[in-house]
Amino acid sequence: MTDTWFNETLYPDWGQRFKFVRQLARVQSPFQDIAVFETDSHGRVLTLDGVVQITERDEFVYQEMLTHVPLLAHGNAKNVLIIGAGDGGVLKHVLMHKGVERAVMAEIDGEVIRLSKEFLPGIGGDAWTNPRAEVIVGDGIDYVKKAPDASFDVIIVDSTDPIGVGEVLFTDEFYKNAARILTPQGLIVNQCGVPFMQADELHETSLRRKQFFPHVTAYIAAVPTYVGGYMTLGWAGKDASLTQHSVETIAARAAEAGITGEYWSPNVHVASFWLPPYIAKHLPK
Amino acid sequence: MTDTWFNETLYPDWGQRFKFVRQLARVQSPFQDIAVFETDSHGRVLTLDGVVQITERDEFVYQEMLTHVPLLAHGNAKNVLIIGAGDGGVLKHVLMHKGVERAVMAEIDGEVIRLSKEFLPGIGGDAWTNPRAEVIVGDGIDYVKKAPDASFDVIIVDSTDPIGVGEVLFTDEFYKNAARILTPQGLIVNQCGVPFMQADELHETSLRRKQFFPHVTAYIAAVPTYVGGYMTLGWAGKDASLTQHSVETIAARAAEAGITGEYWSPNVHVASFWLPPYIAKHLPK
Repeated sequence: MTDTWFNETLYPDWGQRFKFVRQLARVQSPFQDIAVFETDSHGRVLTLDGVVQITERDEFVYQEMLTHVPLLAHGNAKNVLIIGAGDGGVLKHVLMHKGVERAVMAEIDGEVIRLSKEFLPGIGGDAWTNPRAEVIVGDGIDYVKKAPDASFDVIIVDSTDPIGVGEVLFTDEFYKNAARILTPQGLIVNQCGVPFMQADELHETSLRRKQFFPHVTAYIAAVPTYVGGYMTLGWAGKDASLTQHSVETIAARAAEAGITGEYWSPNVHVASFWLPPYIAKHLPK
Repeated sequence: MTDTWFNETLYPDWGQRFKFVRQLARVQSPFQDIAVFETDSHGRVLTLDGVVQITERDEFVYQEMLTHVPLLAHGNAKNVLIIGAGDGGVLKHVLMHKGVERAVMAEIDGEVIRLSKEFLPGIGGDAWTNPRAEVIVGDGIDYVKKAPDASFDVIIVDSTDPIGVGEVLFTDEFYKNAARILTPQGLIVNQCGVPFMQADELHETSLRRKQFFPHVTAYIAAVPTYVGGYMTLGWAGKDASLTQHSVETIAARAAEAGITGEYWSPNVHVASFWLPPYIAKHLPK
């Protein structure tokens, strides 16, 4: 067998590449081209339409930051809605929080769930069968349209970039419904790309969130395989104080909730809202 | 002209690639293979032995963090020694600090300086002819051997990884002399790779520093083209309090020194010492 390289196609003239040992799956679903391959450097890698979504070796960074930061910043999240995240990693991390009573996950592409369960079983773990979890194969935008007012404390959107299948998760209609179905202390986070390469993504989606939420900001995570420096996680909430907690408050909440991390820590949590100027300048004033 | 890709060879089975518009220079110096090429995505890119050293578009991250953090943490650095950094960017950033009276730079490879001046003139700017600057084409390890006791407040090592030409800059002998030529509040920083990919580099070089300095730690920067999450900058000093300043102290010192940043800010400075657990575990106890 000859060596084979996967070249990520996210950007036309720069990107990462992986030497892969073998391809485990390649499926054209009704929504996207899904591939799973095995590497020596990063374990198994899942790609959608040629863009790396998750690797076994560095997924902890993304999952911890996308989950523990909003849940501990909220401090009393009982009902959590996850949109996308078909690999199951966010669901698993949400369920680590003792106080969460119900985690609903809506992933549009059942093939992502099926392939993740088969080839990346460690990422979702036993979250799939947790009695607090409700996994829906369906459209997140439909789900938020139909959900009752004030029915969720936190919404986590783990989508692709706002192109293709992920595009509807960044629309005015989506954010309007998100604001409606969130409780008074509620907040929504969603991945907003790597601003060094995709600054418009943070800027434009923040402007949309701003129409429906009084407090719009972002926080950062250095995810090894989302190359290009920090990625940003967009934040929209009703209560600005949630992004201003002290290290001590977050540490106490984490201890209570039973949360530790490999990337996340109380200090990292607090510092993740301190944006470097080159990123902060893309947020709406 | 056909499209051409540069594939970084730092790691055997993962890495970044650049589509380049044209190659501007390719020189085999007595020390290494030096290339400069032009890209649409990152401006001009300098590589040594196939490894990206600097790009015009993201150099600000590395230069600001490698310079402003040690100088402002020290608070009264008058004499600064720079080893390596042949592109001139660290020299330029050191000279931004009003209180610096003398910056000595020792770069072993005169070809790196020559090519940087010709093809990357904005990176060094007018630092090359600043009367406070002394640029030596010579061996950094020889320089620290011969320099008088307590003659520098801060030493900044901007080298390649501890292989090949950079290797001597991570030896016991080098650190021993560094400790000798530093003032009582003195400190040395040096780039220690990307721990997600090169954890041994941080761990092993920290152990060496620990033999000669009472306070050894590291701080982090998310440099877009040092792919793989955070890079670490190793820190060895005589006074542990220097890495514990408040945001207010750093902000006041920066205002006094005339320093602002695009990546660096007083908050980012303070948070850069708060290592994610997956990095902190590689530091000596």
